[in-house]
Amino acid sequence: MTTQEFVHVTYLAHGKPGTDWQKKAQGIAVGLTVGSWTDLPEARKDAMQKHLGHVVSAEEIGQDAHGLSQTLLTVAYPTINFTPDIPALLTSVFGKLSMDGKIRLVDIELPPAFQSKFPGPKYGIDGIRKQLGIENRPLLMSIFKSVIGYDIDALAEAFYQQALGGVDLVKDDEIFFDETYAPFEKRIEACRLAAERAKEQTGKFTLYAANLTGPVTEIFDKARRAVDAGANALLLNVLTYGYDVLHRLAADPKITVPIMAHPAMAGAMYPSEQYGIAAPVLLGKLMRIAGADFVLYPSAYGSVAMERGETLKIAQALRAEHSGLNRSFPVPSAGIHPGLVTKLYDDLGNDQIINAGGGVHGHPGGSAAGGRAFVAAIDAVVAGKTLTEAAEHAPELKTALELWNK
Amino acid sequence: MTTQEFVHVTYLAHGKPGTDWQKKAQGIAVGLTVGSWTDLPEARKDAMQKHLGHVVSAEEIGQDAHGLSQTLLTVAYPTINFTPDIPALLTSVFGKLSMDGKIRLVDIELPPAFQSKFPGPKYGIDGIRKQLGIENRPLLMSIFKSVIGYDIDALAEAFYQQALGGVDLVKDDEIFFDETYAPFEKRIEACRLAAERAKEQTGKFTLYAANLTGPVTEIFDKARRAVDAGANALLLNVLTYGYDVLHRLAADPKITVPIMAHPAMAGAMYPSEQYGIAAPVLLGKLMRIAGADFVLYPSAYGSVAMERGETLKIAQALRAEHSGLNRSFPVPSAGIHPGLVTKLYDDLGNDQIINAGGGVHGHPGGSAAGGRAFVAAIDAVVAGKTLTEAAEHAPELKTALELWNK
Repeated sequence: MTTQEFVHVTYLAHGKPGTDWQKKAQGIAVGLTVGSWTDLPEARKDAMQKHLGHVVSAEEIGQDAHGLSQTLLTVAYPTINFTPDIPALLTSVFGKLSMDGKIRLVDIELPPAFQSKFPGPKYGIDGIRKQLGIENRPLLMSIFKSVIGYDIDALAEAFYQQALGGVDLVKDDEIFFDETYAPFEKRIEACRLAAERAKEQTGKFTLYAANLTGPVTEIFDKARRAVDAGANALLLNVLTYGYDVLHRLAADPKITVPIMAHPAMAGAMYPSEQYGIAAPVLLGKLMRIAGADFVLYPSAYGSVAMERGETLKIAQALRAEHSGLNRSFPVPSAGIHPGLVTKLYDDLGNDQIINAGGGVHGHPGGSAAGGRAFVAAIDAVVAGKTLTEAAEHAPELKTALELWNK
Repeated sequence: MTTQEFVHVTYLAHGKPGTDWQKKAQGIAVGLTVGSWTDLPEARKDAMQKHLGHVVSAEEIGQDAHGLSQTLLTVAYPTINFTPDIPALLTSVFGKLSMDGKIRLVDIELPPAFQSKFPGPKYGIDGIRKQLGIENRPLLMSIFKSVIGYDIDALAEAFYQQALGGVDLVKDDEIFFDETYAPFEKRIEACRLAAERAKEQTGKFTLYAANLTGPVTEIFDKARRAVDAGANALLLNVLTYGYDVLHRLAADPKITVPIMAHPAMAGAMYPSEQYGIAAPVLLGKLMRIAGADFVLYPSAYGSVAMERGETLKIAQALRAEHSGLNRSFPVPSAGIHPGLVTKLYDDLGNDQIINAGGGVHGHPGGSAAGGRAFVAAIDAVVAGKTLTEAAEHAPELKTALELWNK
């Protein structure tokens, strides 16, 4: 027999004051593992013991505005009940339970041996820095915007303009699905050529993260073909495809590029206080375990904003050291403009991606000028200067600050 | 040029009284399609026109308890922006938007030509009735419970006991993942033999819905192997695997068995009033489009209960006629016992599955007696009798009513 190992899962439950929370937690621990316990014959109990979940703690932490008791329940589930994949994990620990009253999944802790069966990021922060040759600053990414229906030439030109601005990566818009005018591999080749053309001007190469779409039955082959076509990175809408698609892409040795996780649909799950899955689990821990090298999520400062404490917890989950997994790049996103770089840097320092769409393309000087404004902002914060100081010698940054820091 | 077709999506938004909802809806219609509009040069507008979303309506319906305005926004998205799959659809219409304030997806209407690219249920209610030779009554299903760690022989015996009770189908528990002791194909073969053994006693055959688990890269082959091994039906945790897995299973001509969708994790998305995806979309429309022949969801009456109106809307979405798709069996579940059969029948009539775990196995006479109690209850309601009347000639039903109708 191997030593028994447990996944620890913490839930936030809301219920009537006086609820017997220990009993509730016990019901979960038994119900989601062996089904029932007290009714079992003794001989079955011996056989089932190793599958039985148990209560770690049930701690009332307060009352909400409606007088409901708020309680944290932590339950330990034997790992031998699961296969090492996220569908098995989530179905078991928050499948039926998600529908059973006011309950929210707020944390998951995997024991090392079980976690080691998940791929984690293939490259992670260190691998990507090595690939790019960039060490001591945040990376900069821009997003293709308003390119729906673009053909290959128009896309390549839009890529070129972004690359000229000095961004390290360009990513597809996550809603880029129809490939009629810009087939996947052709688009990857055209953007690579555009990156080389820009490099002749700027001296630096720009990566392209292409949106991996289509039937799940074809997506793994498609990803391998993308690598053969010279892809630098792949973007995946992880939550609409399922975490296991990310997991298997990350675990595939032929897919030799980093994977970028988009949080599309995450807002269907994390914002409620009573239900759903907390963002640091949904976009932090689970994304990292399943193998995301980069994870986008709403920053605390932009147009689609998340509470700052939550964004810091996501980044913490993605970057925590000594976890046995490569670290993932946090990518706080949505409505980012150069004037926000100071706040982002104060929060997360170097190991993050500064990511902008409208904040690049909306620059009065165009996309390349928009990129240069960000480059100047990043150089400034890394050098300990204020943006206002830097703007004196960086006209594009000055323009950006005038536009967006109103 | 083909005629332009639109997917209509309705959202429930909460916001400050006085919000310009028309403007908000316009921002969605433009932002989630062409990105921006007023800034585009006229030549680009001509090219982009066919990709542009538009506002159908923005109608304030009331205020919530906190004085927030509640508004229904309906936006039309051109289908040419999407590939015909649910990841593309959800990423586009509720990807980034799900994170943008208090907004909930409450309805999706697909136009016929676009919908026809989705598989829908391969068999549906009519196909399954034909296969079983059962016409004018609800079907009866029981669930393997407390079988974690069971070997093949123990499972086969548990199946046999359930089949003896006269149930039409037996399904795996959705948390049955570890196949060490009961490998998938061996389990399917053993349950088929047990079904045949029971048939010698009862004269009827019982179907087995086996839980389809494991890596998404292997799941399609595994499903085909299950069919070769004599599987009757497959159970899938659709929301933890992603709708596209269901879609591709349903679209695969080699998978010649009906597919049963489990709602595990749905509670992370449907219960909030302000966020998430409404249950009739999540467990109704999308499940049917993607190809579920049966869909489980919490009934209004059991241990894990959903509001009755919502359960009826799910069933309506699954069974609506003239939609161009086969109809799916609604399976109201969780804590169902024979005493609830009248209510379930009054709500949904014949075209449903009565599904129980504890309500079968918890019968004082054992699982076979538990099944017979349900059979008697179903026969009674179909014949227009009360359960109390029927119990006079059905001792197992009498026992069940005494136990659960307290």
